[in-house]
Amino acid sequence: MTEKLFLKACNGEVLATPPLWLMRQAGRYLPEYREIRSTAKGFLDFCYSPKLATEVTLQPIRRFGFDAAILFSDILVVPDALGQNVSFIEGEGPKLEPISSEAELNKLEDQIDLNKLAPVFETIDRVKSQLPKTTALIGFCGAPWTVASYMIAGHGTADQAPARLFAYRFPHVFQRLIDKLVVASLLYLNAQIEAGVEAVQIFDSWAGVLPREEFLRWCYEPVCKMVAALKQAHPHIKVIAFPRQATSHLSMMAQTCGADVLGLDTSVDVVWAAQNVQNHITVQGNLDPLVLLAGGDRLKSQVMSIKTALQARPYIFNLGHGILPQTPVAHVEQLVKLVRS
Amino acid sequence: MTEKLFLKACNGEVLATPPLWLMRQAGRYLPEYREIRSTAKGFLDFCYSPKLATEVTLQPIRRFGFDAAILFSDILVVPDALGQNVSFIEGEGPKLEPISSEAELNKLEDQIDLNKLAPVFETIDRVKSQLPKTTALIGFCGAPWTVASYMIAGHGTADQAPARLFAYRFPHVFQRLIDKLVVASLLYLNAQIEAGVEAVQIFDSWAGVLPREEFLRWCYEPVCKMVAALKQAHPHIKVIAFPRQATSHLSMMAQTCGADVLGLDTSVDVVWAAQNVQNHITVQGNLDPLVLLAGGDRLKSQVMSIKTALQARPYIFNLGHGILPQTPVAHVEQLVKLVRS
Repeated sequence: MTEKLFLKACNGEVLATPPLWLMRQAGRYLPEYREIRSTAKGFLDFCYSPKLATEVTLQPIRRFGFDAAILFSDILVVPDALGQNVSFIEGEGPKLEPISSEAELNKLEDQIDLNKLAPVFETIDRVKSQLPKTTALIGFCGAPWTVASYMIAGHGTADQAPARLFAYRFPHVFQRLIDKLVVASLLYLNAQIEAGVEAVQIFDSWAGVLPREEFLRWCYEPVCKMVAALKQAHPHIKVIAFPRQATSHLSMMAQTCGADVLGLDTSVDVVWAAQNVQNHITVQGNLDPLVLLAGGDRLKSQVMSIKTALQARPYIFNLGHGILPQTPVAHVEQLVKLVRS
Repeated sequence: MTEKLFLKACNGEVLATPPLWLMRQAGRYLPEYREIRSTAKGFLDFCYSPKLATEVTLQPIRRFGFDAAILFSDILVVPDALGQNVSFIEGEGPKLEPISSEAELNKLEDQIDLNKLAPVFETIDRVKSQLPKTTALIGFCGAPWTVASYMIAGHGTADQAPARLFAYRFPHVFQRLIDKLVVASLLYLNAQIEAGVEAVQIFDSWAGVLPREEFLRWCYEPVCKMVAALKQAHPHIKVIAFPRQATSHLSMMAQTCGADVLGLDTSVDVVWAAQNVQNHITVQGNLDPLVLLAGGDRLKSQVMSIKTALQARPYIFNLGHGILPQTPVAHVEQLVKLVRS
């Protein structure tokens, strides 16, 4: 029997106090993070340094005592380990050499290079040995559709138009990319699990732009396939799927995709989710990162609104999207008190 | 009894062939639009020219025989007529003098200046006299939340962070802005109806970023209030509400907001919508504008998928978002055939 609240909630237990962690909790809103970040050159170098990545993974646990730590890394290490040129430009975000044809797709490596990712697994090992015994460790990767959207556009986009167009025009080529990402992401996640993570989150941040058939083909099927394969290799692993803004599919996914937890983004009405999603599965979410930044009365009342709506069934308290760099640390302290009071 | 297919669908009739129109159908994808656009200076001057606006409103009707024309105008004529400085910069989109304090809000006019908007009503009158008798005419405005998000940020934003923060920090001031926009938008829509439009669409393009309580306060309540007031003043007017990406609220809105039609954005699963939304109300949507741009097999199959899912109950065929300027005219011709075959 686990003592970890986070894993209890993943297992479907209803708890008096929900477990709490925050997406991007190891991040720029923390002064101790900014200090360490300034010692590394590129962002990928930072992700690939076990010493630095371990330290920033642990920082929010020490400060706030969250119920789960999440490995400090980035979803774009997968294209990097597939041989695509990936860099991060300060203030601009990720830049990749875009894939705009089958020939360019063919230039990727056949297999993900797990040696390149060895520092990630070492980070997991180091973090694991230093975490309090009540704190769970979460690994993660991007969902194939979301990672593909960066690989094709070459950068972040508001509407993922380049990947959507590519998928409409060259569905067979796009299918090859998705299949490649399923295989690569599974190898990567299985290695994370073998290194010690107890749960993995699959971030499908851009799932909310696709029509029905495309969602089923490019998001639902690949993610379900990954969940099944992860569970087969590691029966005790907990899986969180987070198909952001794909709200009309949430109830169906809760019933059929095999994950243990579904993430809710900020736009999901928690009262609706309690009746249509949480009746089938543990949910995670969904405080607005902007209300955490703003603080004040609305922070208090939004936390209460989420607790009231979700407390009768299993849930994990989190944000609906990543914490913003400008968020005052004092507001996070207040949030921890509000969630645990 | 109306002969207009569009109004029949608004009335809840199930039709053998659904009525068809496209959001932004009067727009840059048409060469005849680009030709006329080049004769006007600013974009607002263009909207305020009855001769030019009438012509571009009619162009897609002549070319494609859509079942409804939509007034050519812009949602930002409302802040313009409230005295806010609004301009459109080629290639950059709208620029407004942003409202960042109560003092700046107080600088707006008390009432919307309907004289300034007189050219819009004249456009409606001119269009009305030239439309085929089977073609309905739709007027529109932006929903208060969506218009407020531009008024506060001063430009379009991916996540409406400035308006969300403003609303969290100064809810009473923000409420005043929303209330002002409800009154102004109602005066504007009632004048459109008196000039001859038979239906109005309320575009809440940015409804999909708000948590439950904020959605109810800033989107749902103002829009429902507007629907009730419009119906009271003009019992026969048809109202389309389009709360884009607010999917978890759609079923509730279908049952309670009093509109005749709910718009579905591209991300809404049509099979889910048939069971959870269309069982209560006529729906409108939701072809991906990018599949119309791409054309080919997926255009055909996506049209069929929407028809199959929605045909048993009343619906209006449309896109899930505005048509893109790069869309080939031949693809629109193909769409018209596919929808009507």
